[in-house]
Parts: sequence; C-alpha cells; structure tokens
Amino acid sequence: MTKPLTGEPALIEALARIFGAAPPEVVLGIGDDCAALDLGGPDYLLWTVDTLVEGVHFDLGYTTLRQLGRKSLAVNLSDVAAMGGTPRYTLLSLGWPKGRDPAGALELAEGLAELGREYGVAVIGGDSVASGDGAAITITVLGTVPKGEMLRRAGARGGDRIFVTGPLGEAAAGLEVLKRRLTLEPALKEPLGQALLDPRPQLRAGRLLASQRLASAMIDLSDGVATDLYHVCRASGVGARLAGAAIPVSPQVRAVARILNQDPLDLALKGGEDYQLLFTSPPELAETLESAFRQAGLPAPLSLGVIIPGDSVLLQTPEGGRDISGAGFNHFRLDRGGGSV
Amino acid sequence: MTKPLTGEPALIEALARIFGAAPPEVVLGIGDDCAALDLGGPDYLLWTVDTLVEGVHFDLGYTTLRQLGRKSLAVNLSDVAAMGGTPRYTLLSLGWPKGRDPAGALELAEGLAELGREYGVAVIGGDSVASGDGAAITITVLGTVPKGEMLRRAGARGGDRIFVTGPLGEAAAGLEVLKRRLTLEPALKEPLGQALLDPRPQLRAGRLLASQRLASAMIDLSDGVATDLYHVCRASGVGARLAGAAIPVSPQVRAVARILNQDPLDLALKGGEDYQLLFTSPPELAETLESAFRQAGLPAPLSLGVIIPGDSVLLQTPEGGRDISGAGFNHFRLDRGGGSV
Repeated sequence: MTKPLTGEPALIEALARIFGAAPPEVVLGIGDDCAALDLGGPDYLLWTVDTLVEGVHFDLGYTTLRQLGRKSLAVNLSDVAAMGGTPRYTLLSLGWPKGRDPAGALELAEGLAELGREYGVAVIGGDSVASGDGAAITITVLGTVPKGEMLRRAGARGGDRIFVTGPLGEAAAGLEVLKRRLTLEPALKEPLGQALLDPRPQLRAGRLLASQRLASAMIDLSDGVATDLYHVCRASGVGARLAGAAIPVSPQVRAVARILNQDPLDLALKGGEDYQLLFTSPPELAETLESAFRQAGLPAPLSLGVIIPGDSVLLQTPEGGRDISGAGFNHFRLDRGGGSV
Repeated sequence: MTKPLTGEPALIEALARIFGAAPPEVVLGIGDDCAALDLGGPDYLLWTVDTLVEGVHFDLGYTTLRQLGRKSLAVNLSDVAAMGGTPRYTLLSLGWPKGRDPAGALELAEGLAELGREYGVAVIGGDSVASGDGAAITITVLGTVPKGEMLRRAGARGGDRIFVTGPLGEAAAGLEVLKRRLTLEPALKEPLGQALLDPRPQLRAGRLLASQRLASAMIDLSDGVATDLYHVCRASGVGARLAGAAIPVSPQVRAVARILNQDPLDLALKGGEDYQLLFTSPPELAETLESAFRQAGLPAPLSLGVIIPGDSVLLQTPEGGRDISGAGFNHFRLDRGGGSV
C-alpha cells in the first residue's frame, strides 16, 4: 500500500470516506504501510498490495526482468518491515503485453521467487492477464506481527529523535545516472545501480525495533524523507526538524549531485525509493538502540533530527531553516510513481 | 486468481516449478481460484488477486466507472464463491493515468464500496499509482471457509453430474451487442448488459453447496464452460460429456446468435465472464440438491452433462460429438483477458 495518493491527503481522505467504517477486527485500515487484521491468535495479520507499471515505475531499458521481479516483491516486503512485521506469503498478478515473449514473464517470476527465498516468503500463487502496451506487476503480501509490537506512522512524540537505517538518495542518484547516461567510475556507480534496481527491504532492522520496542513510529522510505517523514508527522500530530549537516549522504550521491550541479540534500531528502526505514525513538533509548543494532550485527541507525511541536518538516542548514513538508519527486502528482526504474 | 495463464498449462506448470514447494500451512497454492492458508482456527483463509486492464478487460466507452468498480470486486468475490467461501476484506490498488481526472478514481471507488456493502465485504485499504495510457485495477480479497467445507477444482468423479448456477453466454452476447452496436429490443438487451457490466458473484449458492456438502468440485465461470470445465477435468483427472440440448441458453442469447449468424452454443460454452458457478455433484444427491436450492430461495441449478473417464470435454449434439476442451475466447492466448468490458 505504501503512500496512498501521495501528496494528496484530500484524496486519501475521500477514499476513506467512500470506503466507510471498517469492522472492529480491522486494526489498521487505509493510510498506513499495511492493513492490519486481528483474526485471533497472538499475531496481527499484515496485508499490503502494490502495483508497478511499465513506463511509470520501471523501464526495461534499465532493469533486467529478474531484477524487476526481485524489486516488485522487495517494495512490498518493505511495507511489512515498516510495521515491524515478518512477511510470509505472496501472490503475483502479472499483466503481460499480448505480443511479448512469455519467457520474460518467467524470468520475472524467477527473480520474485529468488528474493522470496532470501527472505523466507513463499510465492503461493499467481496469474497472468494480458495487458496493453506495457507490463503491470501486482504483488500482494501477507505477513504477521505480534500484537504488542506493531509499529505504525502514528506514535512519534516531541523530543523523539529521527533515524534512518541507511544512507539516503542512492536510488535517486542511480536513476539520474541511468537516465542521463552519466559517466561515473564503477566503484561509485555500482552501489547506486544496486540501490535503484535491487533494493533490500530492511526486515531485520524492522523486527529488531519492533520486538525490542525501540521505536515510537515507523515508515518505509519510498517517496523520500521529505514526504515520508511528513506522513509520520501528520499521523502523529507533530512536526520535525532535520539537521542538514546530519543527513547521511554517501560519496557517490555527492558525486552525482556535483555532476548535476544540484544540492546533494535534494537527492537525499526528496529522492524516492530508498526503501530504508525511517523511525522515531525517545532520546532515553539512544544507548539501548545503538547496542541492540550492534549486537544484531546491523549498521547503526543514522540520526537526522528531532520531533518538535507543529505540523511541518523543517530542514535546518547554515543558510537557515526551510519547510520541506511533502516535497519530493511526487509531491504534485496523484501518485507515488515518480522516479522508479 | 482465476485462470492462471489460461490455455497454457505448460506456463502455469513452469510458474509452479519456479515458485517451488510451499510451506505446510499452504493448503492450496497456485492453480485454483483462491490460495488457501491454514493459520489456525476453524477456518481456512482464502486469498485471491485479480487485475483488470483498460483496453483489455474493459472499455470506458461501454461501462461507467461505478459499474467498473463494482465488477472489479465482483470477479474477485466470484473466486471466493468458487471455493465455497465467504469474502471478508479487500484492498484496492488503482493505476490511474497521469492526466486523467482523479474524480473518476473516486467514482470507481464508490462502485467498489457499494458492491462491498451489498456482500458484506469491507474495503480496508487502497492506493493509487500513476499508470501509463490506461487504468489498471487490482483487487485483492481475503475470505474464509470452514475447514471441512472448502471446494476446489479437483474432486469430480466419473458419474457426477455437471451443473451451472445460471444461464450461459449472456455476458458474451452482451459484449457482441456493445461492440457491434447491434439493435435489439430493450427487454432482450438489458439483461445482457447487466450480465456483462454488473455481474453478481454467486456467493449464496457457493456457500450452500459447500456447507451442505452437495458438490464434489467447483470453479467459477470466467473463461467459459469449455475452458473452465476443462480446468476441473484436468485437476480431477476425468473427462466430461455435455449434452448440447441441455445447455441453458436464454432467448436473448439466441437472438444475438441469430443476428450474428452464429451457433448459440458457441456463445454459451466458449464465451467468457458468466461468473456463474460450475460444479459437479454425485447423482445420488440430485434430490437433496434441488430441495436445498429451493429452500434457500435460489434458482435450481441447471444440469449440463456428466463426468466420464478420460481427459477431455466432449459436446454431444444431434450432429455427433466434438472435443471442445479448453476452447474459448482465450484458448490461444497467454491469458484469460479476452472478452471483458
């Protein structure tokens, strides 16, 4: 489900109004990364669906079909990670253009199954329908999360620190490299390509944060920090202040920004598809948080800023502060489908 | 999930091979109308996903967006009906063309929610992504069925009688009327249009058959009897013989066939999208079956023929017998996406 009708809260509210009240066993409905159901037992059932459309979310000139199959599942697993959950099962519904070689559909399915095996997710069904000009890949995933552990967008409080699980802007920089055919040395180029074409859902980090109750709110980064942190702020009824100097920007993202003559912070905060987790955590848990990640062998979360009263996302730089609430690739669009490959 | 890669068993088998073995709690994986999961408790969880693509499965020149929203959900509910289950929850993932008025997306959502209310299904989430030239509507549904009651494609035995829950070929005839702008008196035209544009999933009949254990195998009719009965035959390891004289063809389907100078049996058996249930039932249950439907206030099931040894679907007419196994709109295509509106 990722970011429903991103940048258009009015539309998501209209949908919620149309769909009406959900029955009581629906713990979370529209407006989070997954829906959550209480069907009895110790766990909530998490449920998400996502569609990737050719020409909008991917371009077969950039990605192999195997990578595309992997990524189609990865972005859904990232939604489950954002709830602190464990993905279990998936179904594939593939729209495949009429004249196109069906062998390609199987290659895509192989990528999907491969990533599924890596993360313990069973692909238990799938079908293929004819599509128009381009392929459309729909994945739906079921997962579980122990009832007391589920994380959501709501829950951030004033004073909480804001973290991400990894560097920002790599996928956005990778897309620029491909689209503009930028020349970059392989050591810089390769991690960008991997971030864009083969993102890794942060499931271990998500489970760690949930099971040890280290986070107050969480979301996965599909539209960029400026937009996704704004979702957290809206859901939690708070504001956020980011410290420009603290934003984790890798040398390769800096290199691309230099070539494009662009502020690297724009790539890092407004670029989509990082598929890292963004979470908030009370300051008194700072040490526990660090040691928990260290003990789990996971990279230390990177601190970006702090939750403050208000309702917007502010970026503090030496030049002053500016409001970046919801700014991103997709801010003025109906959808979240901006910068994918 | 409907008919995966219809007409191409080799492809569905290739997918099953790629996806590999499912964990033991997956009661039914690829190759039935729904996947079924045993997550504890008295019921199986049923899960299906379907995508309707503009220009392939629907044409906005024929259908209103509200009808389309209704139908998008109806075809998924029909998959749950085919297992004898009760649909409970649904998520919508809507691909909407970039430049198109978002008000249309809301109209579609309204139709979806409306049908959901009629059948007690909660729409608990949804998102919208940009699509290319046309809209793409993906619906995923979760339902339940008591563990001892689930029906599947496998289970038909020699001697079982073959039934459908309603008349055949109406949607296919309706599509011909719209595509060819046929002139037909309203009393004949209206039921065809309704069958095509606003099909009703046969949930009550499905539950009745399952709860009273009146059927040995079941499938919903999305690709036409020739194809869907063939799926039952393949899954059950049997053949089928249909009696041409017994095929239920309504006056309006006959009228369209006459105008098209076509055999009405072709519309009835090879036309898609009836969304009636096709089931098999042992002959000794014939009376119980009839009285159960009567008591429930449902139209009596219509008998088409009988299950026989073999592996094909034979149609018996005064001119002789012919093999129609898998014949239908979509037999020579990758997909099931043939004749929709």
